[in-house]
Amino acid sequence: MTEKIEPRLLKGFRDYNTTEQAARQEMFRKIQETFESFGFAPLSTPVLEYKDILMGKYGEDEKLIYAFKDNGDRDVAMRYDLTVPLARYVAQNINQLTLPFKRYQIAPVWRADNPQRGRLREFYQCDVDSVGAVGALSDAEVVSCVCKAIEAVGITGYKIKINDRGLFEIISKAFLNGSDEEIQVMRAMDKTDKIGREGVVNLLKEKGVSDDAMKFAELLLEAGTGNGALDKLEQAVPGASERVKEFRKLVGLIAAQGIDADKIVFDPSCVRGLDYYTGMVCEIVLKDNPEFGSIAGGGRYDGLLETFSATSVPAVGVSIGVDRLFEAMESLGLIKQSGSVQALILNLDEELAPDYVAMAKTLREAGISAEVYFQVAKLDKQFKYAENRGAKFAIIMGSEEKSAGTVQVKDLATREQKVVKVEELAGALT
Amino acid sequence: MTEKIEPRLLKGFRDYNTTEQAARQEMFRKIQETFESFGFAPLSTPVLEYKDILMGKYGEDEKLIYAFKDNGDRDVAMRYDLTVPLARYVAQNINQLTLPFKRYQIAPVWRADNPQRGRLREFYQCDVDSVGAVGALSDAEVVSCVCKAIEAVGITGYKIKINDRGLFEIISKAFLNGSDEEIQVMRAMDKTDKIGREGVVNLLKEKGVSDDAMKFAELLLEAGTGNGALDKLEQAVPGASERVKEFRKLVGLIAAQGIDADKIVFDPSCVRGLDYYTGMVCEIVLKDNPEFGSIAGGGRYDGLLETFSATSVPAVGVSIGVDRLFEAMESLGLIKQSGSVQALILNLDEELAPDYVAMAKTLREAGISAEVYFQVAKLDKQFKYAENRGAKFAIIMGSEEKSAGTVQVKDLATREQKVVKVEELAGALT
Repeated sequence: MTEKIEPRLLKGFRDYNTTEQAARQEMFRKIQETFESFGFAPLSTPVLEYKDILMGKYGEDEKLIYAFKDNGDRDVAMRYDLTVPLARYVAQNINQLTLPFKRYQIAPVWRADNPQRGRLREFYQCDVDSVGAVGALSDAEVVSCVCKAIEAVGITGYKIKINDRGLFEIISKAFLNGSDEEIQVMRAMDKTDKIGREGVVNLLKEKGVSDDAMKFAELLLEAGTGNGALDKLEQAVPGASERVKEFRKLVGLIAAQGIDADKIVFDPSCVRGLDYYTGMVCEIVLKDNPEFGSIAGGGRYDGLLETFSATSVPAVGVSIGVDRLFEAMESLGLIKQSGSVQALILNLDEELAPDYVAMAKTLREAGISAEVYFQVAKLDKQFKYAENRGAKFAIIMGSEEKSAGTVQVKDLATREQKVVKVEELAGALT
Repeated sequence: MTEKIEPRLLKGFRDYNTTEQAARQEMFRKIQETFESFGFAPLSTPVLEYKDILMGKYGEDEKLIYAFKDNGDRDVAMRYDLTVPLARYVAQNINQLTLPFKRYQIAPVWRADNPQRGRLREFYQCDVDSVGAVGALSDAEVVSCVCKAIEAVGITGYKIKINDRGLFEIISKAFLNGSDEEIQVMRAMDKTDKIGREGVVNLLKEKGVSDDAMKFAELLLEAGTGNGALDKLEQAVPGASERVKEFRKLVGLIAAQGIDADKIVFDPSCVRGLDYYTGMVCEIVLKDNPEFGSIAGGGRYDGLLETFSATSVPAVGVSIGVDRLFEAMESLGLIKQSGSVQALILNLDEELAPDYVAMAKTLREAGISAEVYFQVAKLDKQFKYAENRGAKFAIIMGSEEKSAGTVQVKDLATREQKVVKVEELAGALT
């Protein structure tokens, strides 16, 4: 006899049981429908890519990539995000694509992160990007379609923190005249949520930045948020006027898509640390549940194809942290616990199996999910099964009911039981 | 400047472009809905498992597993099918599960097969299994829910080849009295589709099997298919009577679920080569397109948990070859080429952007997917884009229409153009 293998999961990996996965699929479906209503279409790229496609894109996080040699001694790697495969796909198919290329992708990615910090090593990303489009309309489109997706899953209490890297640059130039301190200020600002305004100031002091850089940071921190902040920046740096005007237009276009204007908040401390953003940047947070952090974020980035092609293509995209979104939905009570089956047909008599099966068929055709208990068994055992499966109704037919052309229908929530003609069964359950 | 990386895919891996992926998602959705109407619920297991979970399950094909050492020096492997992860999951959670545990999973698997033979190394499996149930009802349930899923995607011209390993055993015993030639006959029979009846006879001759084994094989081959074949086997081996009766019941239960009885064909040559089947086995083929081979197959197997647990649990499952199914759908013209967006709102005037966006919003709320062209551009360029995107309607509003409170709607198929009031736009498109 062979040795038993202990059934177990790798750290940082998890199963989703049938209840969880049904709810996740429902969430994905709503997000997909929303994206598609905005004219975004799904793209599917493989899990494995040549390793060199992925390398040089993620800075020091590159060490988290699952890379190995395959059976043919090729260096391969598991997808680390959905943006690099998108860039590879666009570069490879640029001549066949209609630009703007508007795609979404919801798929797992792998990162050998530290599971002790609650991080999964396999998790889902949900990205929506417009490739090849410039301007406020396409920026507003991705932002609002993500907001609408979040609303579609039932979350309405959220806030969009939005900023413009272009505006940041203009103000930065006015203070720093193009010095390389800009990036230090940006990275410090990016920590505002975690360490607070004072923390940012202290951090910059520690770094020993110039007085100009400190003044620049203080302006951003003290401006506050919202329209008032925009006014203050415009007053402080008159050269920013034109860009501020454009930015106000962008905010107007997001609101015009049906997003509550109160939810859209200009926040000069929202800079998103990554170097590659060039225009609008945004983050979506839950209004009353900041503990979930940002549940979506993104912005405009140029040079998507930089490493693959001589052509550079502008792009704008937002990514939803769907695992975090799902947790938020759970904690807000938005996951409806639907049972795995609506009607369980009890099995009282082997001879009646064809009748049971025919009833199940009729119910399914009426849009009611139905199954027959697999064998004759004690009634309490079958009722217990119906309950565990979350069934709403138990259907009971013995030889007596069969002769009378009836069934008994038991509502498992109210415990009420009634007699129904077989041909009226589907109607009685709806 | 850094060197450009050539954008390329690994052999045996592919992208699905937005048109293909939209159609695949639609196919998956229909399959899921059908499975759920039978009370099956989705399970999700990770792509990576400990390597030892997968080893010793696939015979010599084990060498096709993508296995490697992860960053923590653990031996890990990418999922090779969905059955072993199911077994691992059930063994790990047996005390929390309600049996029968009815789950489906649609997910990619990886096999380092030879791509020269047209085999993909990353492909999708679609499995539906009942774990912990015995008997004809659960056998009939998985078979008919797969047939209904195939019908749901539009394929009606199919045939279910069905057999019973138990019946095979009984007949085998009558001829071979338990000798180990049974497995040789079974494996030869499994090749009937490829090499023909004569081929099977020749193969067995080459193997030098006994006269009894040859007679056994000839009985199966000459019995033909369908009810007549069952009659013949029953006459030849009276001891098989009881099992034949049970088998006829099973066929009746599949038909009772609404599957055309003509489609269900007893075929004694359908044995499915794998050793682990113990009862019903089946394969679904396209009636008029045998070139696609079997598009689904499965059967009853015991000992699902054998390698993980002392408890043995019976199970029955069928797997749909979804990539093959999708190819069949393509070749049968069942993929409807839906555009990525229904209505494209042309961009004639930057000042009207908020109006355009508000129109798009109204259309989406009426269930019509809509987008605004991202910038002001020549009309023919925008019409070209609308066409490439497969849009049905172009919506045109310049400053004149804006003043009049109207838009022009152009039907892109008929080329007809009409003037519509802005507030009546959604109604005019449905």
